[in-house]
Amino acid sequence: MERRKFLKGAGLAGVLASGTAPAIVMAQENVRWRLASSFPKVLDTIYGTGEGFARNVAEATDGKFQISVHAPGELVPAFGVADAVEQGTIECAHTAPYYFFGKDETFAIDCAIPFGMNSRMQTAWMYDGNGMTLMREFYAQYNIVNFTMGNTGAQMGGWYRREINTVADLNGLKFRVGGFGGRVLAKLGVVPQNIPGGETYQALERGTIDAVEWVGPYDDLKFGFHKVAPNYYYPAPWEGGAQLSLYINDKAWNALSPQYQSIVRQAASDAHVRMQATYDSRNPNALRQLIAEGAKLHRFSREIMDAVFKARNEVYAELNEKNPAWKKIYADYERFLRDQYQWFSLSENSYNQYMAAQNL
Amino acid sequence: MERRKFLKGAGLAGVLASGTAPAIVMAQENVRWRLASSFPKVLDTIYGTGEGFARNVAEATDGKFQISVHAPGELVPAFGVADAVEQGTIECAHTAPYYFFGKDETFAIDCAIPFGMNSRMQTAWMYDGNGMTLMREFYAQYNIVNFTMGNTGAQMGGWYRREINTVADLNGLKFRVGGFGGRVLAKLGVVPQNIPGGETYQALERGTIDAVEWVGPYDDLKFGFHKVAPNYYYPAPWEGGAQLSLYINDKAWNALSPQYQSIVRQAASDAHVRMQATYDSRNPNALRQLIAEGAKLHRFSREIMDAVFKARNEVYAELNEKNPAWKKIYADYERFLRDQYQWFSLSENSYNQYMAAQNL
Repeated sequence: MERRKFLKGAGLAGVLASGTAPAIVMAQENVRWRLASSFPKVLDTIYGTGEGFARNVAEATDGKFQISVHAPGELVPAFGVADAVEQGTIECAHTAPYYFFGKDETFAIDCAIPFGMNSRMQTAWMYDGNGMTLMREFYAQYNIVNFTMGNTGAQMGGWYRREINTVADLNGLKFRVGGFGGRVLAKLGVVPQNIPGGETYQALERGTIDAVEWVGPYDDLKFGFHKVAPNYYYPAPWEGGAQLSLYINDKAWNALSPQYQSIVRQAASDAHVRMQATYDSRNPNALRQLIAEGAKLHRFSREIMDAVFKARNEVYAELNEKNPAWKKIYADYERFLRDQYQWFSLSENSYNQYMAAQNL
Repeated sequence: MERRKFLKGAGLAGVLASGTAPAIVMAQENVRWRLASSFPKVLDTIYGTGEGFARNVAEATDGKFQISVHAPGELVPAFGVADAVEQGTIECAHTAPYYFFGKDETFAIDCAIPFGMNSRMQTAWMYDGNGMTLMREFYAQYNIVNFTMGNTGAQMGGWYRREINTVADLNGLKFRVGGFGGRVLAKLGVVPQNIPGGETYQALERGTIDAVEWVGPYDDLKFGFHKVAPNYYYPAPWEGGAQLSLYINDKAWNALSPQYQSIVRQAASDAHVRMQATYDSRNPNALRQLIAEGAKLHRFSREIMDAVFKARNEVYAELNEKNPAWKKIYADYERFLRDQYQWFSLSENSYNQYMAAQNL
């Protein structure tokens, strides 16, 4: 009994460490990583995706590869995770790359840019298009190895104290909007606020901001935005699908065996598909509850949609001039996006439109 | 050198088999499975999904868990895979569950039923709704443990020698249609043919059938249907998204350690997301090539869509009367579907429609 306990406690690495088979020892080594999430613990969807990833890795390695998951502030602030991964003070992070558009706008292409690809298209670009290759090249300068890990789907356009009917209504609006979308909205007079999720409700309640967008009904209900700003708009021109990433410090990644690298890749894929599924599955009930509690649904006017589209085109043209990394990756993204919307406009969209029009 | 070779050859199980630590040995055991695919090797999308899954499992176990992948006829016929898994003559299979609607129509709910959920919705039902629990209960009588492994997205409506404009044009049409869709189309006079993918082109060329649907541009181009029947219709009312499954014999599943079970689950998730991404990514170019080679695109008329929708409702009402397993699972599916289309009709569909209307 004592002997078995000892063997269990030592782990297989310990058992074999006395010099028998190096290759096998490597494949079985104990690894401990820390993952910093940019999202608050209250969100089982998006914070839970980091936890699910860590659980996957632990299960697949029989507990030998342990990743502890940390909320913003425990190790680093919500928006400090990219720097921490770059510097190697943490091994990995789960975040929305567009938070870091201030370093370089190119980060946003790995997440969501206004009137960009939807969830499935972005996944297709990353898994079978050139997306992963191009982003890996870009991230190398930040010592980051990235994996796609989650998507929210097309987001709601946010919560507003008063109705937003015209472009003029956007002028001077202090609006919490995730990442890069604010750059485009600033062209229309919006005063964008890039505030971490966990701090948004307080800012809205205190009147520091006039409006807030987060994700969609399930998360938004948890935050309770509808109690302060009941006008709920759709769709979000700035987020047709926000893709999240797992950032891994390149030295930590390179120290893993090929076996563990494959386990991490697959664990991230499972977390990726599970996050979108969770949002899709849970949003309908949450939306019903929001409406029952006073949320007022509005569709953004054509005028506003068109104005954001025009501003988007201007910003992208400017970036193509100024930012070579953006120009290179956006060219591939744009070609892929164009192909995707043409293809989706056949079977996928006509099927969905037909279904949405039925009395189901 | 000799000693290292011996250790490598024996595997870790052999090294530790002399009685030290049973728990560790179990986690490291060598496993060999055979996977029978229902799909022909020429389709790197759908046959490739089985291969990718097997590669994932091998990588995550450092080669200790090997799954060989077999085309139809190598071990069992394309439509014999469910029986073979049930009987345990093979450990697992990759297939489209609706092929087996003749055993029980309930199989089809795990794949595609006419005017059913789209790809993302079906994934949401399986990963976060009640879908997986309900299907596992159903499959238990067939000794099957299922995993979701791939989706095609909304399919094209198929290839027809002559134009199909009215419901009358469907009467007497000998149409190869995958699985359960044929049951609904039979109400409109179609003579459905449930033919494995690998045999469809020959049947069309020989004139045994008048029309064929398979999946979409990328696969269809490989088969070359457009050379025989150039009229290409969309969307497929019978397949808003065909979900594939990994079937595992329950004894084989129960013999795995929790570690290996988790590895299989995650490997299937990665294959699941990758298959949809591959179709989405590759369909646009294939569609262009098909059109360049003479394919003629048509949208199914409203008359035909509505007639299929009506026939679908009749068939489902009949099944609710006759088949208790269908009734139980379909009730949950229908409720989920209704919620999903209501929710998607806000942000997701309005965003996609706006994008499709732009000059991108």
